[in-house]
Amino acid sequence: MEILDGRLASQTIREELKLKTAQRGVEGKKTPHLAAVLVGNNGASETYVNAKVKACAEVGFKSTLIKLTEDITESALLSTIEKLNVDPDIDGILVQLPLPKQVSENKIINAINPLKDVDGFHPVSVGKMIQGLDTFIPATPYGIMLLLEHYKIETAGLHAVVIGRSNIVGRPISILLSNNTQPGNCTVTLCHSRTRNLEALCREADIIVAALGKPEFIRADMVKGGAILVDVGITRVADPGKKSGFALKGDAHFESVAPKCSWITPVPGGVGPMTIAGLLKNTFRACEEQDDSSEQ
Amino acid sequence: MEILDGRLASQTIREELKLKTAQRGVEGKKTPHLAAVLVGNNGASETYVNAKVKACAEVGFKSTLIKLTEDITESALLSTIEKLNVDPDIDGILVQLPLPKQVSENKIINAINPLKDVDGFHPVSVGKMIQGLDTFIPATPYGIMLLLEHYKIETAGLHAVVIGRSNIVGRPISILLSNNTQPGNCTVTLCHSRTRNLEALCREADIIVAALGKPEFIRADMVKGGAILVDVGITRVADPGKKSGFALKGDAHFESVAPKCSWITPVPGGVGPMTIAGLLKNTFRACEEQDDSSEQ
Repeated sequence: MEILDGRLASQTIREELKLKTAQRGVEGKKTPHLAAVLVGNNGASETYVNAKVKACAEVGFKSTLIKLTEDITESALLSTIEKLNVDPDIDGILVQLPLPKQVSENKIINAINPLKDVDGFHPVSVGKMIQGLDTFIPATPYGIMLLLEHYKIETAGLHAVVIGRSNIVGRPISILLSNNTQPGNCTVTLCHSRTRNLEALCREADIIVAALGKPEFIRADMVKGGAILVDVGITRVADPGKKSGFALKGDAHFESVAPKCSWITPVPGGVGPMTIAGLLKNTFRACEEQDDSSEQ
Repeated sequence: MEILDGRLASQTIREELKLKTAQRGVEGKKTPHLAAVLVGNNGASETYVNAKVKACAEVGFKSTLIKLTEDITESALLSTIEKLNVDPDIDGILVQLPLPKQVSENKIINAINPLKDVDGFHPVSVGKMIQGLDTFIPATPYGIMLLLEHYKIETAGLHAVVIGRSNIVGRPISILLSNNTQPGNCTVTLCHSRTRNLEALCREADIIVAALGKPEFIRADMVKGGAILVDVGITRVADPGKKSGFALKGDAHFESVAPKCSWITPVPGGVGPMTIAGLLKNTFRACEEQDDSSEQ
């Protein structure tokens, strides 16, 4: 069993971005600049956004964190987005989900300038991804692809079982893994809450991508020997033995599952850091594309 | 075994559209108008486009067929699209694929006004489909969903195996069948040229959607008893016994497969007529939406 080490792979990507960003500075080019919009006081959302802002600083990007109160109206949030859309110094816009009930997430996502859509949730980005065109790919599935690429995992012809059909992870990774690319070219089965015989399907998988958000759901008897396990889950579970009072658990029961796998992502330290790497790569790309086009 | 009769279901839909179109006339509203662009002299493409134009006439739509020569430049085709985009009398634009080599299909598709994208191939339409938003769905997968709906096939929890990952059929139907809708909510396995053990996968399927374009590829021993078979293939095969010199064959060997199925689409008379029904519904919708918004 070998570890798909997201911290290590992410580190490599971030060092590369740091160099490229410094190089842009030397050439007198614009510094990549991410705007992150955080609504309300959701603890997990704050943690995620803070990690993203910190990661920007580490690679030399600028970032702007815009904190808005939980009771913001949809039109006020739309006007915030619109200002960022037209601000020439902002390259990428990230709206941390979930949003409060009075705001339509789709309306907000669809209002983001597709050129600045570093989360890759805008219909234009999604549509291009499906067409196999070069575009922004949502950070988590992008990070998973980068991780498989980093470890040179040959995926062509493998049967991947993806658990979870969210627009943020399950759906896009199911598409990316089945595209005619490397990594990719998998036969992909997309499973969800209505799936029957999930355990039997998992046992047939060469690759399992677990993105259902149920801690330790995947047990050893659901995994074929030699399978590759990508664990997207990350749930806080009470743990009196820890100083923080909780432990972070993935969707797989790591201790029992890992020995059967050829490759497995740990939690934490697997997909999480790769998500950040994906976001940074998207932001750098947004800067390059907009800056280059404005120079022409 | 029962037949998923595409001619019958399509007929029902077309009669409904005919009534609604007449009603629009009574109310003094605009007649739906489809522009079909045909490049070159591909026999199959001509047949398809002619069938679409004829179907428009039958339900009372206007249609305009624009025939262009095989040697057209990309920029000339783009300017044709642009004229149709801004023509207020044109509600829907259809560019018959494939296009000649000197023209980028993606560039042409992406140039179509998303409000007139009745083929549903524009990234905005595809992205919205994935988000589960109401939008134009490509005619063939839309037609398949309409056919399952017409026959009230309960698909939730069924395992669908889709063969073929094209942007026109396989990919979108795999998404639609796995969305949280009825029909839908299937566990979906998307197979393609790199898939191993395709026969074994087919034998597990409750629904097979065959869209690989290999005549009579699916044989009886690849199908589970009681399965639902949707045959998208339609290939001309030489047949000296026929006056035309050829027969139309689906991707399944109908005679041997049909007795094992609970439901099966014939070829011809299955998915084909439903594709036309899907296109007509999209065109009507495009007219309604643009006309309504222009009145506001």
